[in-house]
Amino acid sequence: MGERGGSAGAAGPAGGGGGHRAPSPARGNGGSRRRRGGPPKPEHPSGHGDSAEEPAGDFRCHTVQESLLSSASGFSNYRGVLNWCVVMLVLCNARLFLENLIKYGILVDPIQVVSLFLKDPYSWPSPCLVIGANVFAVAGLELERRLAAGSLSERAGSALRCLNLLSILCFPAAVVLLLPSVTPVGAAFALGIHTVLFLKLFSFHDVNKWCRQRPQNAPKTPQKPPQGGEEARRANGDVAHREVEYPENLSYRNLYYFLLAPTLCYELNFPRSPRLRKRFLLRRLCEMLFFTQLQVGLIQQWMVPTIQNSMKPFRDMDYSRIIERLLKLAVPNHLIWLIFFYWFFHSCLNAGAELLRFGDRQFYRDWWNSESVTYFWQNWNIPVHKWCLRHFYKPMLRRGVGKRTAQAAVFLASAFFHEYLVSVPLRMFRLWAFMGMAAQIPLAWLVSRFLRGHYGNAAVWLSLILGQPVAVLMYVHDYYVLHCNNTG
Amino acid sequence: MGERGGSAGAAGPAGGGGGHRAPSPARGNGGSRRRRGGPPKPEHPSGHGDSAEEPAGDFRCHTVQESLLSSASGFSNYRGVLNWCVVMLVLCNARLFLENLIKYGILVDPIQVVSLFLKDPYSWPSPCLVIGANVFAVAGLELERRLAAGSLSERAGSALRCLNLLSILCFPAAVVLLLPSVTPVGAAFALGIHTVLFLKLFSFHDVNKWCRQRPQNAPKTPQKPPQGGEEARRANGDVAHREVEYPENLSYRNLYYFLLAPTLCYELNFPRSPRLRKRFLLRRLCEMLFFTQLQVGLIQQWMVPTIQNSMKPFRDMDYSRIIERLLKLAVPNHLIWLIFFYWFFHSCLNAGAELLRFGDRQFYRDWWNSESVTYFWQNWNIPVHKWCLRHFYKPMLRRGVGKRTAQAAVFLASAFFHEYLVSVPLRMFRLWAFMGMAAQIPLAWLVSRFLRGHYGNAAVWLSLILGQPVAVLMYVHDYYVLHCNNTG
Repeated sequence: MGERGGSAGAAGPAGGGGGHRAPSPARGNGGSRRRRGGPPKPEHPSGHGDSAEEPAGDFRCHTVQESLLSSASGFSNYRGVLNWCVVMLVLCNARLFLENLIKYGILVDPIQVVSLFLKDPYSWPSPCLVIGANVFAVAGLELERRLAAGSLSERAGSALRCLNLLSILCFPAAVVLLLPSVTPVGAAFALGIHTVLFLKLFSFHDVNKWCRQRPQNAPKTPQKPPQGGEEARRANGDVAHREVEYPENLSYRNLYYFLLAPTLCYELNFPRSPRLRKRFLLRRLCEMLFFTQLQVGLIQQWMVPTIQNSMKPFRDMDYSRIIERLLKLAVPNHLIWLIFFYWFFHSCLNAGAELLRFGDRQFYRDWWNSESVTYFWQNWNIPVHKWCLRHFYKPMLRRGVGKRTAQAAVFLASAFFHEYLVSVPLRMFRLWAFMGMAAQIPLAWLVSRFLRGHYGNAAVWLSLILGQPVAVLMYVHDYYVLHCNNTG
Repeated sequence: MGERGGSAGAAGPAGGGGGHRAPSPARGNGGSRRRRGGPPKPEHPSGHGDSAEEPAGDFRCHTVQESLLSSASGFSNYRGVLNWCVVMLVLCNARLFLENLIKYGILVDPIQVVSLFLKDPYSWPSPCLVIGANVFAVAGLELERRLAAGSLSERAGSALRCLNLLSILCFPAAVVLLLPSVTPVGAAFALGIHTVLFLKLFSFHDVNKWCRQRPQNAPKTPQKPPQGGEEARRANGDVAHREVEYPENLSYRNLYYFLLAPTLCYELNFPRSPRLRKRFLLRRLCEMLFFTQLQVGLIQQWMVPTIQNSMKPFRDMDYSRIIERLLKLAVPNHLIWLIFFYWFFHSCLNAGAELLRFGDRQFYRDWWNSESVTYFWQNWNIPVHKWCLRHFYKPMLRRGVGKRTAQAAVFLASAFFHEYLVSVPLRMFRLWAFMGMAAQIPLAWLVSRFLRGHYGNAAVWLSLILGQPVAVLMYVHDYYVLHCNNTG
């Protein structure tokens, strides 16, 4: 082992310890760009005649080469930096968690959650509202039955349908605004259920209308079962799924299957999974239970103290502290949102689908890779996206509206529902949620115009991580000023 | 655009907004593992005869498919999660920085740095020590001259050489321990210079000994210039670099070039860069200036308050708070270490090398990708690694020592120097630094035994991020107990 120039780039002293060695990257590349014309130094081939165990020759151990971080070296393998990011992230958040525990002790209190839904244990306004929602569903079904039978004109049906749909949105809002015993959380829950019902009945009416408008000579549904029919029939004890045709579908059974199914788009015959996988269902139910606890715990332990600490800077309009609080709130808010996403879109919807043997489990696509804001909105919430596409965007296109306009209209409709679900329960109309959604239109344009690839992805993440706590802080601040500052 | 099953997986509403679309991943894959035997559902080929603009057929918009996060989906593209990590990391640290600024105000004070080096402005012990170090270098050169001339026996030369080298380490240590006017920082600086001199002279003596021992019939250095000789000569005004042979190299000029060059391994003729790149040098000098300021600022603003806040938990032995403080200290400590790495190994050494037209700029390799502890220690500090390899590890192997033993000996020698550079300036012998380095031996074994690939890389990062602040806190705690608690 002579001390030649060639050994410097490759040999290590402690090769025994499993040193998985990357190929020495700087060799032969270093400085070749700057060293104009100079031939590369020969690597002092071995075999000078002396013993390989003795240092000899001119005892060379240096060669002309650039540092790896110099641009001239051409080196670009920074894979380890990504692991560094992960390690740093885990450590930073472990510290935050520990600091929080030391500062506030354990604040988690599952009983307190009940009080969010119930102000007065003898008055249950939100569950009553949810039960009352069945009236609109039954009204919608009866309306369609009349239309199918021909005892109601298409025009009158259209008007009644609009009335029914409008009252689904207006009635619970009026109840919430007028009845003081409704808590904000209970109201948000009831309004959410009504919004889902609105979207579902909208789709139900649309599809039934398309069925009536279908030319009579158009080919009907091919009469074969949706998938693996023979298999499924054997596995499920010959419970045949006969394909349902138009007027037959106007049954309570068909309607309530759609209302319970995890989709917003009606179709006459949903694809069904061949059997109920009990272990899959059990896993999803355990996840639901665990993540519910985790969300409640994180909110009580981490969000609430942070938000309470943010009120003073807001009152004093101390901008550097507001930003500090905002960044402090961003981390738990984002983590809770991620947990919520998994809990709702993976655990809850899959559990519901498994119970109903509903086949289409695509409740989200890979939004985490989205490199543009539009890709994110197209992929994070597939039931809503599919509904918007089928019942709002494409009908608009068919009426000759431009693509850009239709896209903006979808965002504005979404903004309306966001505002509806936040402002009415809180009983204050501040338009923060509306503006947050509406701001996605210029944001989408900006990101797609200036950022691509990983930069676009980072911009989407940034808007998610920072956008939400801004809106949360805005609402909390205003709510605080309205309700808690009356005494001061 | 009919509402077929096939469109659900591919179409998006807002395709106009530059939505860079990943290939729809769940298609055809979803549930195929569980749906035993069932043939995949046909994708409802278009062309039913009705207008493509009208919804028709059976208005299908669902297909049987699994959620992406289900293991059955086979989906594995989580590239965006890495961008999420980066965004979260930047945000978390931006918040920490802001919080620190709000809490402590601006603590950066460049003047205060001077007081770390100088206690008494009329007494400059550290610079005097550094200037005095020249005596050892001159003594080493004179010794080699006598040996080359034959006026000193090889045996006596060896003894004198050991004496000279030992006194390089012992003399400044004795001065620091006996002279109270030496500040810890000044002492660490002087001892560092002496350690470097020790390693350089060790290499100088070794190489000269090898030259004397070389068999006279061995082929000499090939008489061609190291690289691009003609080019270099023209570019630099015909200043020829004649290759130096053994006894000629014992000149002050040759020795001082080696002492100033950014390497610890002596060789008679160093590879030289063809010319001084003025812009490269200027960039490195600017970096040196900027990162010096940044390090001083971060230490004053971030490290010092965190360390001061850690003293109380340490006094009370409050373990959860100690860990919280440790994690809090880990972030600034690690960032400062990273900046130090770039500042010293890239900026300073490259600037020095450029000034001396020293050709070999490999001061570090890609340690950030290291998947084992040994790979890290082999690659983060190439000058020291090269010295250990050439003058410590390989001579030991030649004497028949086993690889493992030699590797452990290298770590222990490194541990000795770490302890020497910390304990003597602080005037307390606690062996924390020694144990920190010695602990790398079992750590290296553990990591290489149980962790591979990215896990190994993460373990190396973790040991770097957490190991250093532990040692720092240990020393600071003991120093605090010794010096500041005397009054209490």
